[in-house]
Amino acid sequence: MPDPATVTVPAREGRAVELRRGDRIRVIDPRGGQVADVFAFCADDVSEYASAQHTRVWVGKLFPAVGEQFVTNHRRPILTLEEDTSPGIHDMLCAACDPARYALLGAEGWHASCEENLQKAMAALGHEGIVIPQPINLFMNIPVGEGGAIGWEPAPTAAGDSVTLRAEMDIIVAVSACPQDLVPINSGDPTEIELEISRG
Amino acid sequence: MPDPATVTVPAREGRAVELRRGDRIRVIDPRGGQVADVFAFCADDVSEYASAQHTRVWVGKLFPAVGEQFVTNHRRPILTLEEDTSPGIHDMLCAACDPARYALLGAEGWHASCEENLQKAMAALGHEGIVIPQPINLFMNIPVGEGGAIGWEPAPTAAGDSVTLRAEMDIIVAVSACPQDLVPINSGDPTEIELEISRG
Repeated sequence: MPDPATVTVPAREGRAVELRRGDRIRVIDPRGGQVADVFAFCADDVSEYASAQHTRVWVGKLFPAVGEQFVTNHRRPILTLEEDTSPGIHDMLCAACDPARYALLGAEGWHASCEENLQKAMAALGHEGIVIPQPINLFMNIPVGEGGAIGWEPAPTAAGDSVTLRAEMDIIVAVSACPQDLVPINSGDPTEIELEISRG
Repeated sequence: MPDPATVTVPAREGRAVELRRGDRIRVIDPRGGQVADVFAFCADDVSEYASAQHTRVWVGKLFPAVGEQFVTNHRRPILTLEEDTSPGIHDMLCAACDPARYALLGAEGWHASCEENLQKAMAALGHEGIVIPQPINLFMNIPVGEGGAIGWEPAPTAAGDSVTLRAEMDIIVAVSACPQDLVPINSGDPTEIELEISRG
Protein backbone atom coordinates (compact mmCIF):
# COMPACT_ATOMS: atom_id res chain seq x y z
CA MET A 1 0.00 0.00 0.00
CA PRO A 2 1.37 3.49 -0.80
CA ASP A 3 2.24 5.72 2.14
CA PRO A 4 0.26 7.80 2.63
CA ALA A 5 -2.62 5.67 1.38
CA THR A 6 -5.86 7.39 0.48
CA VAL A 7 -9.38 6.08 0.92
CA THR A 8 -12.46 7.86 -0.36
CA VAL A 9 -15.59 7.57 1.77
CA PRO A 10 -18.30 8.23 -0.83
CA ALA A 11 -21.11 10.62 0.05
CA ARG A 12 -23.62 8.98 2.44
CA GLU A 13 -21.40 5.90 2.94
CA GLY A 14 -18.89 4.58 5.48
CA ARG A 15 -15.49 2.89 5.43
CA ALA A 16 -13.31 1.27 8.10
CA VAL A 17 -9.51 0.97 8.11
CA GLU A 18 -7.02 -0.74 10.39
CA LEU A 19 -4.29 1.34 12.00
CA ARG A 20 -1.28 0.26 14.01
CA ARG A 21 -0.16 2.21 17.05
CA GLY A 22 1.66 5.32 15.80
CA ASP A 23 -0.15 5.44 12.45
CA ARG A 24 -1.99 8.63 11.53
CA ILE A 25 -5.27 9.22 9.76
CA ARG A 26 -6.04 12.58 8.21
CA VAL A 27 -9.79 13.11 7.79
CA ILE A 28 -10.36 15.61 4.99
CA ASP A 29 -13.52 17.42 3.96
CA PRO A 30 -12.64 17.94 0.28
CA ARG A 31 -15.58 20.20 -0.61
CA GLY A 32 -16.31 21.87 2.76
CA GLY A 33 -19.50 21.94 4.83
CA GLN A 34 -19.54 18.18 5.50
CA VAL A 35 -19.59 16.23 8.78
CA ALA A 36 -17.49 13.07 9.32
CA ASP A 37 -18.65 10.68 12.05
CA VAL A 38 -15.56 8.91 13.40
CA PHE A 39 -15.53 5.76 15.54
CA ALA A 40 -12.44 3.98 16.89
CA PHE A 41 -12.30 0.43 18.27
CA CYS A 42 -9.46 -1.53 19.86
CA ALA A 43 -8.33 -4.00 17.20
CA ASP A 44 -8.08 -6.93 19.58
CA ASP A 45 -11.39 -6.31 21.41
CA VAL A 46 -14.04 -4.19 19.72
CA SER A 47 -16.02 -3.98 22.97
CA GLU A 48 -13.45 -1.32 23.90
CA TYR A 49 -13.86 1.85 21.86
CA ALA A 50 -13.41 5.62 21.89
CA SER A 51 -15.98 6.92 24.38
CA ALA A 52 -17.34 10.47 24.47
CA GLN A 53 -18.48 10.28 28.09
CA HIS A 54 -15.06 9.12 29.30
CA THR A 55 -13.14 11.50 27.02
CA ARG A 56 -15.00 14.55 28.41
CA VAL A 57 -13.89 13.58 31.92
CA TRP A 58 -10.32 12.87 30.72
CA VAL A 59 -9.84 16.29 29.08
CA GLY A 60 -12.19 18.31 31.31
CA LYS A 61 -14.03 19.77 28.35
CA LEU A 62 -16.65 18.97 25.73
CA PHE A 63 -14.06 18.16 23.03
CA PRO A 64 -10.29 17.60 23.16
CA ALA A 65 -7.94 20.39 22.07
CA VAL A 66 -5.05 19.79 19.67
CA GLY A 67 -2.49 17.66 21.51
CA GLU A 68 -5.11 16.04 23.75
CA GLN A 69 -6.43 12.51 23.63
CA PHE A 70 -9.63 10.59 23.20
CA VAL A 71 -9.92 7.67 25.62
CA THR A 72 -11.84 4.41 25.57
CA ASN A 73 -14.65 3.18 27.80
CA HIS A 74 -11.79 1.72 29.89
CA ARG A 75 -10.16 5.19 30.09
CA ARG A 76 -7.14 4.26 27.95
CA PRO A 77 -5.86 6.73 25.32
CA ILE A 78 -6.86 5.54 21.85
CA LEU A 79 -6.43 8.61 19.59
CA THR A 80 -4.52 11.87 19.84
CA LEU A 81 -5.90 14.95 18.11
CA GLU A 82 -2.63 15.85 16.43
CA GLU A 83 -3.53 18.59 13.96
CA ASP A 84 -6.63 20.56 13.00
CA THR A 85 -6.66 22.85 9.96
CA SER A 86 -10.44 23.40 10.22
CA PRO A 87 -12.15 26.13 12.28
CA GLY A 88 -11.93 23.68 15.19
CA ILE A 89 -15.65 23.22 15.64
CA HIS A 90 -16.56 19.59 16.33
CA ASP A 91 -19.25 17.73 18.25
CA MET A 92 -19.18 15.04 20.88
CA LEU A 93 -22.74 15.46 22.22
CA CYS A 94 -24.94 13.85 19.56
CA ALA A 95 -25.66 10.23 18.73
CA ALA A 96 -25.04 8.98 15.21
CA CYS A 97 -28.02 9.33 12.91
CA ASP A 98 -29.90 6.05 12.57
CA PRO A 99 -33.12 4.73 11.02
CA ALA A 100 -35.16 5.87 14.05
CA ARG A 101 -33.80 9.42 13.70
CA TYR A 102 -34.87 9.66 10.07
CA ALA A 103 -38.31 8.16 10.82
CA LEU A 104 -38.79 10.80 13.54
CA LEU A 105 -37.74 13.51 11.05
CA GLY A 106 -40.44 12.32 8.64
CA ALA A 107 -38.32 10.50 6.06
CA GLU A 108 -40.32 7.97 4.09
CA GLY A 109 -38.73 4.64 3.34
CA TRP A 110 -35.06 3.79 3.82
CA HIS A 111 -32.55 6.58 4.45
CA ALA A 112 -28.80 6.07 4.72
CA SER A 113 -27.49 6.66 8.25
CA CYS A 114 -24.16 6.86 10.07
CA GLU A 115 -25.23 3.93 12.28
CA GLU A 116 -25.82 1.64 9.31
CA ASN A 117 -22.67 2.94 7.61
CA LEU A 118 -20.70 2.00 10.72
CA GLN A 119 -22.30 -1.44 10.94
CA LYS A 120 -21.60 -2.21 7.26
CA ALA A 121 -18.01 -0.95 7.42
CA MET A 122 -17.27 -3.01 10.54
CA ALA A 123 -19.00 -6.08 9.09
CA ALA A 124 -16.73 -5.79 6.05
CA LEU A 125 -13.81 -6.34 8.44
CA GLY A 126 -15.55 -9.29 10.12
CA HIS A 127 -17.11 -7.49 13.09
CA GLU A 128 -20.86 -8.11 13.23
CA GLY A 129 -23.17 -7.03 16.03
CA ILE A 130 -20.96 -4.33 17.54
CA VAL A 131 -22.18 -1.95 20.22
CA ILE A 132 -22.78 1.46 18.59
CA PRO A 133 -20.51 3.95 20.37
CA GLN A 134 -21.20 7.67 20.49
CA PRO A 135 -19.33 9.15 17.51
CA ILE A 136 -16.64 11.81 17.32
CA ASN A 137 -18.47 14.14 14.94
CA LEU A 138 -15.70 16.02 13.15
CA PHE A 139 -16.66 19.39 11.63
CA MET A 140 -20.17 19.15 13.16
CA ASN A 141 -21.46 22.47 14.47
CA ILE A 142 -23.66 21.96 17.54
CA PRO A 143 -23.49 25.21 19.52
CA VAL A 144 -24.32 25.02 23.23
CA GLY A 145 -26.33 28.06 24.30
CA GLU A 146 -28.24 29.49 27.23
CA GLY A 147 -29.58 26.85 29.63
CA GLY A 148 -27.72 24.11 27.78
CA ALA A 149 -29.79 24.43 24.59
CA ILE A 150 -28.08 22.87 21.57
CA GLY A 151 -28.51 23.78 17.90
CA TRP A 152 -27.81 22.15 14.52
CA GLU A 153 -25.78 24.45 12.26
CA PRO A 154 -23.95 23.86 8.97
CA ALA A 155 -20.40 22.54 9.20
CA PRO A 156 -18.08 25.59 9.01
CA THR A 157 -15.34 23.79 7.05
CA ALA A 158 -13.81 25.13 3.85
CA ALA A 159 -12.78 22.76 1.04
CA GLY A 160 -9.68 20.81 2.09
CA ASP A 161 -9.96 21.36 5.84
CA SER A 162 -8.79 18.37 7.83
CA VAL A 163 -8.15 16.81 11.22
CA THR A 164 -5.24 14.43 11.84
CA LEU A 165 -5.58 11.72 14.47
CA ARG A 166 -2.76 9.48 15.73
CA ALA A 167 -3.51 5.94 16.87
CA GLU A 168 -2.37 5.28 20.45
CA MET A 169 -2.95 1.52 20.12
CA ASP A 170 -3.78 -0.90 17.29
CA ILE A 171 -7.25 0.14 16.23
CA ILE A 172 -9.99 0.01 13.64
CA VAL A 173 -11.24 3.45 12.63
CA ALA A 174 -14.61 3.75 10.93
CA VAL A 175 -15.65 6.97 9.21
CA SER A 176 -19.10 7.83 7.89
CA ALA A 177 -19.68 10.70 5.45
CA CYS A 178 -22.83 11.78 7.28
CA PRO A 179 -25.93 11.42 5.04
CA GLN A 180 -28.04 13.83 7.10
CA ASP A 181 -30.01 16.04 4.68
CA LEU A 182 -33.08 16.81 6.82
CA VAL A 183 -31.27 19.10 9.24
CA PRO A 184 -28.67 21.58 7.90
CA ILE A 185 -25.47 20.15 9.44
CA ASN A 186 -24.11 19.10 6.02
CA SER A 187 -25.06 22.38 4.37
CA GLY A 188 -28.00 20.66 2.65
CA ASP A 189 -25.84 18.50 0.39
CA PRO A 190 -23.99 15.49 1.85
CA THR A 191 -20.65 14.98 0.11
CA GLU A 192 -17.68 12.63 0.35
CA ILE A 193 -14.86 12.49 2.91
CA GLU A 194 -11.26 11.63 2.11
CA LEU A 195 -8.96 9.66 4.40
CA GLU A 196 -5.18 9.81 4.20
CA ILE A 197 -3.40 7.12 6.19
CA SER A 198 0.30 7.47 7.09
CA ARG A 199 2.16 4.60 8.67
CA GLY A 200 3.91 5.49 11.91
CA MET B 1 -45.45 -4.11 48.99
CA PRO B 2 -46.67 -0.83 50.48
CA ASP B 3 -47.45 1.99 48.05
CA PRO B 4 -45.37 4.05 48.00
CA ALA B 5 -42.58 1.58 48.76
CA THR B 6 -39.28 2.92 49.98
CA VAL B 7 -35.81 1.58 49.27
CA THR B 8 -32.66 2.93 50.86
CA VAL B 9 -29.54 2.96 48.71
CA PRO B 10 -26.82 2.94 51.38
CA ALA B 11 -23.91 5.35 51.01
CA ARG B 12 -21.46 4.15 48.31
CA GLU B 13 -23.80 1.32 47.22
CA GLY B 14 -26.35 0.67 44.46
CA ARG B 15 -29.83 -0.84 44.15
CA ALA B 16 -32.07 -1.78 41.23
CA VAL B 17 -35.87 -1.92 41.18
CA GLU B 18 -38.41 -3.02 38.59
CA LEU B 19 -41.05 -0.53 37.47
CA ARG B 20 -44.09 -1.04 35.28
CA ARG B 21 -45.10 1.53 32.73
CA GLY B 22 -46.80 4.39 34.60
CA ASP B 23 -45.02 3.75 37.89
CA ARG B 24 -43.04 6.59 39.44
CA ILE B 25 -39.74 6.67 41.28
CA ARG B 26 -38.82 9.59 43.49
CA VAL B 27 -35.06 9.86 43.99
CA ILE B 28 -34.41 11.71 47.24
CA ASP B 29 -31.18 13.13 48.61
CA PRO B 30 -32.05 12.91 52.33
CA ARG B 31 -29.01 14.81 53.65
CA GLY B 32 -28.20 17.09 50.71
CA GLY B 33 -25.01 17.46 48.68
CA GLN B 34 -25.13 13.93 47.24
CA VAL B 35 -25.14 12.71 43.62
CA ALA B 36 -27.37 9.82 42.46
CA ASP B 37 -26.30 8.00 39.28
CA VAL B 38 -29.47 6.69 37.62
CA PHE B 39 -29.61 4.05 34.87
CA ALA B 40 -32.77 2.71 33.20
CA PHE B 41 -33.05 -0.47 31.12
CA CYS B 42 -35.96 -1.93 29.15
CA ALA B 43 -37.22 -4.83 31.27
CA ASP B 44 -37.57 -7.21 28.31
CA ASP B 45 -34.23 -6.37 26.66
CA VAL B 46 -31.51 -4.76 28.73
CA SER B 47 -29.50 -3.96 25.59
CA GLU B 48 -31.96 -1.06 25.24
CA TYR B 49 -31.43 1.61 27.88
CA ALA B 50 -31.72 5.31 28.64
CA SER B 51 -29.09 6.99 26.46
CA ALA B 52 -27.58 10.41 27.10
CA GLN B 53 -26.41 10.93 23.52
CA HIS B 54 -29.88 10.19 22.11
CA THR B 55 -31.70 12.13 24.84
CA ARG B 56 -29.72 15.32 24.10
CA VAL B 57 -30.85 15.15 20.47
CA TRP B 58 -34.44 14.35 21.52
CA VAL B 59 -34.79 17.37 23.83
CA GLY B 60 -32.35 19.71 22.05
CA LYS B 61 -30.47 20.46 25.24
CA LEU B 62 -27.90 19.01 27.62
CA PHE B 63 -30.52 17.77 30.10
CA PRO B 64 -34.31 17.42 29.89
CA ALA B 65 -36.55 20.02 31.53
CA VAL B 66 -39.47 19.05 33.78
CA GLY B 67 -42.11 17.47 31.55
CA GLU B 68 -39.57 16.23 29.02
CA GLN B 69 -38.39 12.71 28.39
CA PHE B 70 -35.27 10.60 28.40
CA VAL B 71 -35.10 8.24 25.43
CA THR B 72 -33.31 4.97 24.79
CA ASN B 73 -30.55 4.10 22.35
CA HIS B 74 -33.45 3.22 20.02
CA ARG B 75 -34.94 6.72 20.54
CA ARG B 76 -38.00 5.50 22.47
CA PRO B 77 -39.19 7.43 25.55
CA ILE B 78 -38.26 5.50 28.68
CA LEU B 79 -38.57 8.05 31.54
CA THR B 80 -40.34 11.37 31.98
CA LEU B 81 -38.83 13.98 34.30
CA GLU B 82 -42.07 14.64 36.15
CA GLU B 83 -41.05 16.76 39.12
CA ASP B 84 -37.88 18.36 40.45
CA THR B 85 -37.77 19.97 43.91
CA SER B 86 -33.97 20.40 43.76
CA PRO B 87 -32.14 23.43 42.31
CA GLY B 88 -32.46 21.65 38.95
CA ILE B 89 -28.75 21.12 38.40
CA HIS B 90 -27.99 17.68 36.96
CA ASP B 91 -25.37 16.15 34.69
CA MET B 92 -25.55 14.06 31.55
CA LEU B 93 -21.97 14.60 30.31
CA CYS B 94 -19.85 12.38 32.57
CA ALA B 95 -19.29 8.64 32.62
CA ALA B 96 -19.99 6.71 35.82
CA CYS B 97 -16.99 6.46 38.11
CA ASP B 98 -15.26 3.10 37.76
CA PRO B 99 -12.11 1.34 39.00
CA ALA B 100 -10.01 3.00 36.26
CA ARG B 101 -11.22 6.45 37.35
CA TYR B 102 -10.15 5.89 40.94
CA ALA B 103 -6.78 4.44 39.89
CA LEU B 104 -6.17 7.57 37.77
CA LEU B 105 -7.12 9.74 40.77
CA GLY B 106 -4.49 7.95 42.86
CA ALA B 107 -6.69 5.75 45.02
CA GLU B 108 -4.80 2.78 46.42
CA GLY B 109 -6.55 -0.59 46.46
CA TRP B 110 -10.24 -1.14 45.84
CA HIS B 111 -12.63 1.81 45.82
CA ALA B 112 -16.40 1.53 45.47
CA SER B 113 -17.66 2.90 42.13
CA CYS B 114 -20.96 3.61 40.41
CA GLU B 115 -20.02 1.16 37.64
CA GLU B 116 -19.54 -1.71 40.08
CA ASN B 117 -22.64 -0.66 42.01
CA LEU B 118 -24.64 -0.85 38.77
CA GLN B 119 -23.19 -4.23 37.84
CA LYS B 120 -23.93 -5.70 41.28
CA ALA B 121 -27.47 -4.30 41.40
CA MET B 122 -28.28 -5.64 37.93
CA ALA B 123 -26.69 -9.02 38.70
CA ALA B 124 -28.95 -9.27 41.76
CA LEU B 125 -31.88 -9.19 39.32
CA GLY B 126 -30.26 -11.79 37.05
CA HIS B 127 -28.59 -9.49 34.52
CA GLU B 128 -24.88 -10.21 34.23
CA GLY B 129 -22.49 -8.68 31.72
CA ILE B 130 -24.58 -5.64 30.80
CA VAL B 131 -23.28 -2.81 28.66
CA ILE B 132 -22.54 0.16 30.96
CA PRO B 133 -24.70 3.08 29.74
CA GLN B 134 -23.86 6.69 30.40
CA PRO B 135 -25.67 7.60 33.62
CA ILE B 136 -28.24 10.27 34.37
CA ASN B 137 -26.32 11.99 37.17
CA LEU B 138 -29.02 13.58 39.33
CA PHE B 139 -27.93 16.52 41.50
CA MET B 140 -24.42 16.45 39.95
CA ASN B 141 -22.98 19.91 39.35
CA ILE B 142 -20.79 19.95 36.23
CA PRO B 143 -20.80 23.54 34.97
CA VAL B 144 -19.99 24.09 31.29
CA GLY B 145 -17.85 27.21 30.86
CA GLU B 146 -15.88 29.11 28.27
CA GLY B 147 -14.64 26.99 25.39
CA GLY B 148 -16.62 23.99 26.65
CA ALA B 149 -14.55 23.56 29.82
CA ILE B 150 -16.31 21.47 32.46
CA GLY B 151 -15.88 21.58 36.23
CA TRP B 152 -16.64 19.34 39.21
CA GLU B 153 -18.59 21.20 41.90
CA PRO B 154 -20.46 20.02 45.01
CA ALA B 155 -24.06 18.92 44.50
CA PRO B 156 -26.24 21.96 45.36
CA THR B 157 -29.07 19.91 46.92
CA ALA B 158 -30.56 20.62 50.33
CA ALA B 159 -31.70 17.78 52.58
CA GLY B 160 -34.88 16.22 51.16
CA ASP B 161 -34.56 17.53 47.61
CA SER B 162 -35.86 15.06 45.06
CA VAL B 163 -36.54 14.26 41.42
CA THR B 164 -39.55 12.20 40.32
CA LEU B 165 -39.30 10.08 37.19
CA ARG B 166 -42.22 8.27 35.52
CA ALA B 167 -41.62 5.01 33.65
CA GLU B 168 -42.77 5.15 30.03
CA MET B 169 -42.34 1.38 29.57
CA ASP B 170 -41.63 -1.60 31.82
CA ILE B 171 -38.12 -0.96 33.06
CA ILE B 172 -35.40 -1.72 35.56
CA VAL B 173 -34.00 1.37 37.25
CA ALA B 174 -30.63 1.17 38.96
CA VAL B 175 -29.46 3.91 41.30
CA SER B 176 -25.99 4.34 42.77
CA ALA B 177 -25.31 6.61 45.73
CA CYS B 178 -22.10 7.91 44.16
CA PRO B 179 -19.04 6.98 46.26
CA GLN B 180 -16.82 9.66 44.74
CA ASP B 181 -14.77 11.23 47.56
CA LEU B 182 -11.65 12.29 45.62
CA VAL B 183 -13.36 15.12 43.73
CA PRO B 184 -15.85 17.37 45.56
CA ILE B 185 -19.11 16.42 43.77
CA ASN B 186 -20.52 14.75 46.90
CA SER B 187 -19.43 17.56 49.20
CA GLY B 188 -16.58 15.40 50.51
CA ASP B 189 -18.85 12.92 52.28
CA PRO B 190 -20.81 10.35 50.23
CA THR B 191 -24.18 9.64 51.86
CA GLU B 192 -27.25 7.53 51.13
CA ILE B 193 -30.04 8.04 48.60
CA GLU B 194 -33.70 7.19 49.25
CA LEU B 195 -36.06 5.83 46.60
CA GLU B 196 -39.84 6.10 46.85
CA ILE B 197 -41.72 3.95 44.35
CA SER B 198 -45.40 4.65 43.58
CA ARG B 199 -47.37 2.26 41.43
CA GLY B 200 -49.07 3.85 38.45
